[in-house]
Amino acid sequence: MSSTPLDARALWADLQAVREHAPLVHSITNLVVMNFNANALLAVGAAPVMAHAHEEVRDMVGIAQALVLNIGTLEPAWISAMQVALLAARARGIPVVLDPVGAGATPYRNAALAELIRAGAPGILRGNASEIMSVAGLAAVTRGVDSAASTADAADAAAALARQLGAVVCVSGADDLIVDAAGRRAVLSNGHPWMTRVTGVGCSASALVGAFAAVQPDPWRATVAAMAVLGVVGEMAVERVKAAGAGVGRLQIELLDGLQLLDEASFTARLRLAVDA
Amino acid sequence: MSSTPLDARALWADLQAVREHAPLVHSITNLVVMNFNANALLAVGAAPVMAHAHEEVRDMVGIAQALVLNIGTLEPAWISAMQVALLAARARGIPVVLDPVGAGATPYRNAALAELIRAGAPGILRGNASEIMSVAGLAAVTRGVDSAASTADAADAAAALARQLGAVVCVSGADDLIVDAAGRRAVLSNGHPWMTRVTGVGCSASALVGAFAAVQPDPWRATVAAMAVLGVVGEMAVERVKAAGAGVGRLQIELLDGLQLLDEASFTARLRLAVDA
Amino acid sequence: MSSTPLDARALWADLQAVREHAPLVHSITNLVVMNFNANALLAVGAAPVMAHAHEEVRDMVGIAQALVLNIGTLEPAWISAMQVALLAARARGIPVVLDPVGAGATPYRNAALAELIRAGAPGILRGNASEIMSVAGLAAVTRGVDSAASTADAADAAAALARQLGAVVCVSGADDLIVDAAGRRAVLSNGHPWMTRVTGVGCSASALVGAFAAVQPDPWRATVAAMAVLGVVGEMAVERVKAAGAGVGRLQIELLDGLQLLDEASFTARLRLAVDA
Repeated sequence: MSSTPLDARALWADLQAVREHAPLVHSITNLVVMNFNANALLAVGAAPVMAHAHEEVRDMVGIAQALVLNIGTLEPAWISAMQVALLAARARGIPVVLDPVGAGATPYRNAALAELIRAGAPGILRGNASEIMSVAGLAAVTRGVDSAASTADAADAAAALARQLGAVVCVSGADDLIVDAAGRRAVLSNGHPWMTRVTGVGCSASALVGAFAAVQPDPWRATVAAMAVLGVVGEMAVERVKAAGAGVGRLQIELLDGLQLLDEASFTARLRLAVDA
Repeated sequence: MSSTPLDARALWADLQAVREHAPLVHSITNLVVMNFNANALLAVGAAPVMAHAHEEVRDMVGIAQALVLNIGTLEPAWISAMQVALLAARARGIPVVLDPVGAGATPYRNAALAELIRAGAPGILRGNASEIMSVAGLAAVTRGVDSAASTADAADAAAALARQLGAVVCVSGADDLIVDAAGRRAVLSNGHPWMTRVTGVGCSASALVGAFAAVQPDPWRATVAAMAVLGVVGEMAVERVKAAGAGVGRLQIELLDGLQLLDEASFTARLRLAVDA
Repeated sequence: MSSTPLDARALWADLQAVREHAPLVHSITNLVVMNFNANALLAVGAAPVMAHAHEEVRDMVGIAQALVLNIGTLEPAWISAMQVALLAARARGIPVVLDPVGAGATPYRNAALAELIRAGAPGILRGNASEIMSVAGLAAVTRGVDSAASTADAADAAAALARQLGAVVCVSGADDLIVDAAGRRAVLSNGHPWMTRVTGVGCSASALVGAFAAVQPDPWRATVAAMAVLGVVGEMAVERVKAAGAGVGRLQIELLDGLQLLDEASFTARLRLAVDA
């Protein structure tokens, strides 16, 4: 347990703030996970809205407390709507989370990410190790820096990317790493591998980060809090599923139940957080 | 219990008709709820079809028994496909349900709704109080009437809108209000607040209204029946969920199970309906 | 039990290969079932990717081990992306599964299917009887053969279509029939009617066929294996659901759990396969 202010008590307070304020989170996300993401936001106590038409994204951002962009099933019209929304969110000063799903998988995906980031850096990026490493390479290219992304591991790439963009970068995996431009660093060791066998859990992590960033002004702390809650909920959910002899189908449901019903004692007892800040 | 014909026995007969005839319900709905809506229609005994291409909506309407339009994740191509479908449905004389999701949230959304309603009034509108109040204001503007929508509560707005459009209007919430142009009025007091914490339950209500309207020629009665079934199913589902120590994740599943397995004794015992007709 | 090589042991080995190799299955599928299909692929041990932008489908096919096309919520841009993907998959030699959802429902749908098949025959088609009969008619027209599709039952249509396209054709229903161009024929008698009351189970069957075809080079055997696994999983899932007094909501979850947790003893004991090869 860290002796810094970033402990279970602080993170729990952030979850309580989400539950109390029910922030409106505007997501422009992929077609596969929309339903699960909306339900994850509702379960944790936030209010989801999904809208992607150019004609209204600016206005929808205008009533939201956070914006979450996810390129999973990208197409040109959606990417340009994301740019409009991103700029509107930055102008209003609300947090923007970018989930670079599949970064590195295709040149188009990489180009779309580069274009998005060129339009305006998001305050928070969350992806798996290969996605973050890919984006780190992209950022270097688009910013004229031929950096070490191809040889660095994800931790180095995340730290470099955080500095380049002035953003919080979260690499999720067996451990979740959350770094910021000032060099703060947190590692969470909760969760369970089965969480990768439900589609949209990573995307929902990004959505939850948006909800927490809407109520907690420090985006690094908000990201740690959201990832901590999901990790603890996830490992408890897998335990319930296995105890019932069930599998990854049931896990979807238990994840949502856990986001709604998580209590402070369980969260505090299970949190595995190491902070260097 | 009402002494009018609109009692539990009549509404149960409508559910039985859905189960017997399995009406084909063509939905042009939002990306977030498509899966849950389709499963809700299947669970209640109807047959869903979802198709939005301009090239085929007219033909798909041609084989459907009801059309349900939902603007949740609207974009221009979808709105114009909805117009084509709406006109085709009116020409064929099959019921049309419109769910004005997010009415009032953005000017584009309001304009799209106004355009849809100008193209041809749907026979049934279902939304929450703010959506119905927003549409009531729109209808006034687009029909050149600067009416009292901004000062009326949802009940007044619903009644006015019903008269303006010659439609059934349903305002769903803690109580569900269903009014028609002739002044008939029903209030349902079933349901549970947790139903708002599963995405797509309201949208599924609209889909179910479509299924009931396909088999019950009185659209007001059909709307009451669909909302009554969902309300009873919902409160029973929440009871089962809470008894199991579960949450809103499990509630999704229990709602679908309930739509399939609801029995007449439970429906009759629990129905809380007040009718003024 | 067949005395040919196509027995439970062989089909089980194919499932083990899916679990071991976790093939990447690229799906361009309909908006209703994306989430369930992705979860079905994850549950069985495969890796789903969904991407539909023209700008990247060729590259995404380039890293996938199978391609699955499903026209459920088709629109022109998606159909042309499917064509690009199909040609890229054929050029790479990876299996292509086509699910002609709603074939025969509208002229546009028929034309889109004809266009797709003209662009390049998929190696495997899977649909219900009416869809396969409709495609058989289409294929006749687009190939200038006024064949007996309109009078033949689905079995004849499937056999004719298999010969015309040089493809494996699967007709799913109470019994599943899988035929190929060489005249091999398998009939599976597992499953349960409730499986048709969960949206996307048929579409997920096609996705699973893609996963099996990625690891089993004989596309006929791969199709039999995928359909056998789903049929056994489905009937076991319905038994669990009914034993719990639950319904088709719970069935979604149990299907996914079953795809993950199916064991060889249950599969072997329950498989009802007749082979003529």
